[in-house]
Amino acid sequence: MISVTILGNNSALPAYGRNPTSQYVQTDKDCFLVDCGEGTQLQLTKYKLKRSKISHIFISHLHGDHYFGLIGLMTSMSLLGRTQELHVHGPALLEKIIMLQMEASESQFSYPFYFHPLPEEGKIADTESCEIYCFPVQHRISCHGFIFTEKKSARKINPEKIKSYGIPESYLETLKKGKDYTHPKGTIIAKEELTFPGDTPLKYAFCADTLYHEEMIEHIKGVDLLYYETTYLKDQNERAEKHHHSTTVQAGLVAKKAGVKKLMIGHFSSKYEQLDPFLIETQTIFPNTILALEGTCVKV
Amino acid sequence: MISVTILGNNSALPAYGRNPTSQYVQTDKDCFLVDCGEGTQLQLTKYKLKRSKISHIFISHLHGDHYFGLIGLMTSMSLLGRTQELHVHGPALLEKIIMLQMEASESQFSYPFYFHPLPEEGKIADTESCEIYCFPVQHRISCHGFIFTEKKSARKINPEKIKSYGIPESYLETLKKGKDYTHPKGTIIAKEELTFPGDTPLKYAFCADTLYHEEMIEHIKGVDLLYYETTYLKDQNERAEKHHHSTTVQAGLVAKKAGVKKLMIGHFSSKYEQLDPFLIETQTIFPNTILALEGTCVKV
Repeated sequence: MISVTILGNNSALPAYGRNPTSQYVQTDKDCFLVDCGEGTQLQLTKYKLKRSKISHIFISHLHGDHYFGLIGLMTSMSLLGRTQELHVHGPALLEKIIMLQMEASESQFSYPFYFHPLPEEGKIADTESCEIYCFPVQHRISCHGFIFTEKKSARKINPEKIKSYGIPESYLETLKKGKDYTHPKGTIIAKEELTFPGDTPLKYAFCADTLYHEEMIEHIKGVDLLYYETTYLKDQNERAEKHHHSTTVQAGLVAKKAGVKKLMIGHFSSKYEQLDPFLIETQTIFPNTILALEGTCVKV
Repeated sequence: MISVTILGNNSALPAYGRNPTSQYVQTDKDCFLVDCGEGTQLQLTKYKLKRSKISHIFISHLHGDHYFGLIGLMTSMSLLGRTQELHVHGPALLEKIIMLQMEASESQFSYPFYFHPLPEEGKIADTESCEIYCFPVQHRISCHGFIFTEKKSARKINPEKIKSYGIPESYLETLKKGKDYTHPKGTIIAKEELTFPGDTPLKYAFCADTLYHEEMIEHIKGVDLLYYETTYLKDQNERAEKHHHSTTVQAGLVAKKAGVKKLMIGHFSSKYEQLDPFLIETQTIFPNTILALEGTCVKV
């Protein structure tokens, strides 16, 4: 299971009650935060999502609407007495920004804080339930997308067969891991007889802020859910290019060319009050599109 | 005229819908911001206060609940195309924090930005309507209070006398500045005959985060409105001292000893949901006390 709760879907400035980018990504075992615009900690409270459960925070790039809420969230965690580790992954300069602000307040975090500068691309985290990869996108400054890949899930027990072969309960965890059963007398019963395959691992790709560029497509091929930015409507092609952002049509094209299952669009420019035109335009290219609406939880 | 609109009244963490410290101070001619916790730009929007009118921002100290919203506000001003000067007054390290974040985003402000490190004490700004002074208070880290003093206001025209002496309209501005009138024939008419004294200049003191200490009193003697922090109720004396904050009773005592006209209390700890006990306790010592409630505009 992977789910994504939208905490902010606006670009640059807060507008029309919309907040800057942040997403809460949950799996069966882990909670992550992707980007952390100003006010993210308030959005977490509003949607009753626990700050304490977040183990890793991924920051795509150092434009303020993607990270100005990070230091507030991190110090609040500290004031609330957090003791578990926190891992922050982002551009190298982010560590300096965090530590300078801690120095200014003559404070230390109450918890072990690990900063991981983002590599050009590759695996950046490996948790109980998930592997997380980053890849470069094309923005005015260095910017990364992230891919969350579920780990291969456990095989599922076939209760009837377990009963009929009289397999002891203590052996079930071993079977879930994909092992065959070896009877004390030496007989082997194949896993296919006793268990069903686990669910296909899900993939969620977050593409951050980016120009339309086809090199990205290889990274996000066939993912179950793609989040891609549509800062502008399709008539603003030039403006999008100038500001290193994308339009609705470009988002649809990326989703189509990458063969993703579902597309979610967000990062709307503050110049737009209405969001329906974004959905309508994108769906002309890629019908299975949804809007990233604040407070909604999308199951991948 | 000086008025103070409360944008945030909570300490440390946002809680119960209360935001971290920020106040919008207006005179007839100027708008200032005092402290700028996370989300201040949203509070400005909520209460329909124009960011564009703010000419000076005063930051008392570098605990996050007093300045984490500053960089977001400043970059939003830039994104909105501000061209007029912005003056920020705060601890020296704040400039480094701002500039490091601008460097990270490879951006520049759209407007002339002047940073003024706070001196130990003394005059820090002088605008058309107001002089602003800072003074040290006692907190865990270097922290300042601010005093806003109206400039001596113009004398008021006595319209009947102006008419009866037949004084030309072109002379009125000179009279307002406190000059006598000299008739073309040489006769002098004294200002007391033609104009009334202007209003007594008002004073507003903002005491930031502080321990109870009597050295502060000389700085705030007789001000028209005193904002003083009450992080804790009176039974939390030890806790207040440990965290370098004050209680309700201490706020009342400071107001009484300084002979101020009115006291406004705020910076409530997140452990308290109800604010009435703060008012009741403080009023036992200093009856003319009000709560700093978000969205309220207090005329000094």
